[in-house]
Formats: sequence, C-alpha cells, structure tokens
Amino acid sequence: MVGFDADDTLWRSQDYFDNAQEEFERILHPWVDLDESGARDRLYQVETGNIGVFGYGVKGMVLSMLEAAIELTEARISAADLERILGLGKELLRHPVELLPGIADAVEAIARDYPVVMITKGDLFHQEAKVRDCGMSDLFGRIEIVSEKDPATYRRLLAEFELPAERFLMIGNSLRSDVLPVLELGGYGIHIPYHSTWIHERAAPVPAGSQRFRHVETAAALPGAVADLDGVAGRLG
Amino acid sequence: MVGFDADDTLWRSQDYFDNAQEEFERILHPWVDLDESGARDRLYQVETGNIGVFGYGVKGMVLSMLEAAIELTEARISAADLERILGLGKELLRHPVELLPGIADAVEAIARDYPVVMITKGDLFHQEAKVRDCGMSDLFGRIEIVSEKDPATYRRLLAEFELPAERFLMIGNSLRSDVLPVLELGGYGIHIPYHSTWIHERAAPVPAGSQRFRHVETAAALPGAVADLDGVAGRLG
Repeated sequence: MVGFDADDTLWRSQDYFDNAQEEFERILHPWVDLDESGARDRLYQVETGNIGVFGYGVKGMVLSMLEAAIELTEARISAADLERILGLGKELLRHPVELLPGIADAVEAIARDYPVVMITKGDLFHQEAKVRDCGMSDLFGRIEIVSEKDPATYRRLLAEFELPAERFLMIGNSLRSDVLPVLELGGYGIHIPYHSTWIHERAAPVPAGSQRFRHVETAAALPGAVADLDGVAGRLG
Repeated sequence: MVGFDADDTLWRSQDYFDNAQEEFERILHPWVDLDESGARDRLYQVETGNIGVFGYGVKGMVLSMLEAAIELTEARISAADLERILGLGKELLRHPVELLPGIADAVEAIARDYPVVMITKGDLFHQEAKVRDCGMSDLFGRIEIVSEKDPATYRRLLAEFELPAERFLMIGNSLRSDVLPVLELGGYGIHIPYHSTWIHERAAPVPAGSQRFRHVETAAALPGAVADLDGVAGRLG
C-alpha cells in the first residue's frame, strides 16, 4: 500500500500561508516596527505556543495572528485591521485546490499497481473540503485526516488497515511528518520536497542512506521510485 | 455494535458554549445595545453563515464571535475587548472534561455485551484532546471524529466497520445528528436528551413511533434500552 501526504505533496498549500503571512505583516506595518520588535519571530512563538491548544490549520493560524497582532501593538491596533486579518483566514479556507505539476498522473500510475491512501494532517473540515475539490479523491481507497503524524498515528492507521509496516510506503514533502515516522516503524518512504516548507516541519535530520528511503525531485519520478523500492521490498503490492 | 455520541452525551459541552455566549454578550454590552440590534440573532446568523467555511467547533465559533463583534460595533470595539473574546475560546479549548452523571457506568455495562465505538462531530484536535482526557477511551474499539453526521457519513463508517446498518445502534443527545440518519439507514437509535441543545441541532422532527427507536431520560436507563432494542433486533451483538 502506498500513502500520500496531501498539503504540498498533492496540492499547493504553504504558498498560501506564506502569502497570508506577508499580508499580515503589511497590515501590522502602520502599527509596529516589525524588524525592531521581531514580529515574525513573535508570531512564530505565538503559533508554536498555541499548537498545543489549537492544533494545525488555518483557523488556529488566524487566531494566533490576531493574538500576536494585539500583543505586538499593545492593543492599539484597530478593529478594522483585525477584521482584515480575519479576512485572510476566510480567503485561505476558500481558495480553490491547485494540484502540483504532474502529481495527478503520478498518483494514477501508482494507483494502477498498488492500493493508495491519503494521510493528511490538519483541520478536519478544511481538509475534507480540499479532498472534495481536488478531483482525484476516487483514486484513494481511504482518506485519513489526523491531528499529528507521529509513529503512534501511523501505527494506529496500519492496524486499522490490517497491514504490516513492511508493506507500507509513504510519499510526502515533509521528512519529519511523512517519511521518518514510517521508516521508524519499518516501512518505506519517498521524500518529494516542496520549494517552501513550514519552518515547523524542517526540524528533522535527513535519514542516513536507508535502503528503505528514496528522494525524488519531481512527481514524474514517483512511480519509478515506488517500483524501485518495491524491488527492495518485493511486497508492497 | 453500539455507537456513542460524545459532546453532551458522554461529557458536558453545550453549557460551556452557552457560558461563553453570555460572556461574549457582557463584553459587547458597553459597545452596543444588544436587544435593539439583535446581537444574539446576528451572531447566530454569522455562525450559521460561517459553518460552510469554518465547520463546527470552538475555533470557528470564536472567529465568528470576533467577526460579529466587529460588525455589530461598526469596528468601534477595542482590541483589548477582542482579546477577551479570543480568551473565551482558549478557555473553552482548555477546560477539563466533565463526564455526565452515570454515563461511565452505562458505557461500561454496554461494552460488556457489545463492541462500542465513539462517533463525534467537531474539531479534530479538540475532540482528540477530550478523548484523551475523558478516562474511558479504552472502552471504545474505535473513535471516529467526523465533520458532519449525515447518512452518507454513517454509511461510510459502517462500510469501514464492515457492519450492516441493521446491526448498528447509535446513542446520542441529538435526534438530528445521532438518531435520524441511523434510522434512515435501517439502524437503531436511542435519544438521551441534554437539558441544553444547540439551536442548530434542534431542527429535526421526532420520529413517529419507530420500532427501532427509544427515548431515555437518564444514562442509567441506557443498558436496558439497548437490551430492549436488541430484543427487537436480536443481532446487535
């Protein structure tokens, strides 16, 4: 079985967050000297501190932006500008899904030879909306939306799939969330990096030449890499 | 198999939302004449209008409260008061789980005779936190957090459980979300009302004397009602 991450593996995601971050800074600009007060660092601190309360996703990000904006401006910011920050969130939640180049063909090719599933982290409601919108949900036997992608989560999912880790391969743009936990359980992983990765996802070392790991640069290279690893495994199908 | 709803079936939930709503109105009071402007109706309109974008849960509620507060005060409200509204949300997300009277014993008794699962709607991250905190997650074979409780969702879950609807009974405080969709699929339902039900959940007619439906007033009556319906069904176990 082959699992696919969704955000920044199947479709564009981080770019929208980056744009929202830039717009957030433009809104704050009249109120606070961003460089001096380290607004960007402070926002990241507020976001990281809030992950334990809000989880991942747009709604938590917007709540964190509002909290940071009020804190950084010592509550001087206008309600009208806070409303613009709220608007950033609504825009993010409503933007249409934009598939990444070549990924639809790659998933289709892999789905011809293996059962495929989608395993994605984030807000249940928003992820479901994107799945409905992406036009390829029929290719996936199951779609799992989880709150954290750690070994415990993959272990639970594999138990539900009644599949040993040795027969599971995960594809995604995050080493930390998509590849390392599956390698740890004895499974296989393919890293397909995205040009922009959320700083929170970067804090992971590259696996030291594992036999069960491949790195590809384009979606077109995915079917070959899966077949290559299946040559090692001989039993992913 | 027996399914349990969670919010206001296993643990207290709506009361916290009602308290937050009261506190929200206290925060707005200095800024706007609530009765004249129909703040409560307007908030309900904003919330309902936003469900399609935000889904259910605390984070969406707080974002809607902020939007309504800015709109109702024509952006006159202070950032400090908006920060208080943000704080209401954090409090809601952090409050400890309070099980409803008798429900732990009832679930335990039913779990001795039937496989039990939890099926709850709302924010993935917050629901998982409550599940961890509730102290009885071990009794449930599976815990399913869904974004909508309609016939299509129950049909998908029953397919994953490999269970025909005729062998499934759902227990919950909402006729609309917990009972009617399962009855519609041919399954069984027990309604255990909570003293306060979100207005959005009320818009459902009471089923006309279905053989596959019971109504109980206390958790202590649940095991008997399950056995009673199993007498009709003879095959829930």
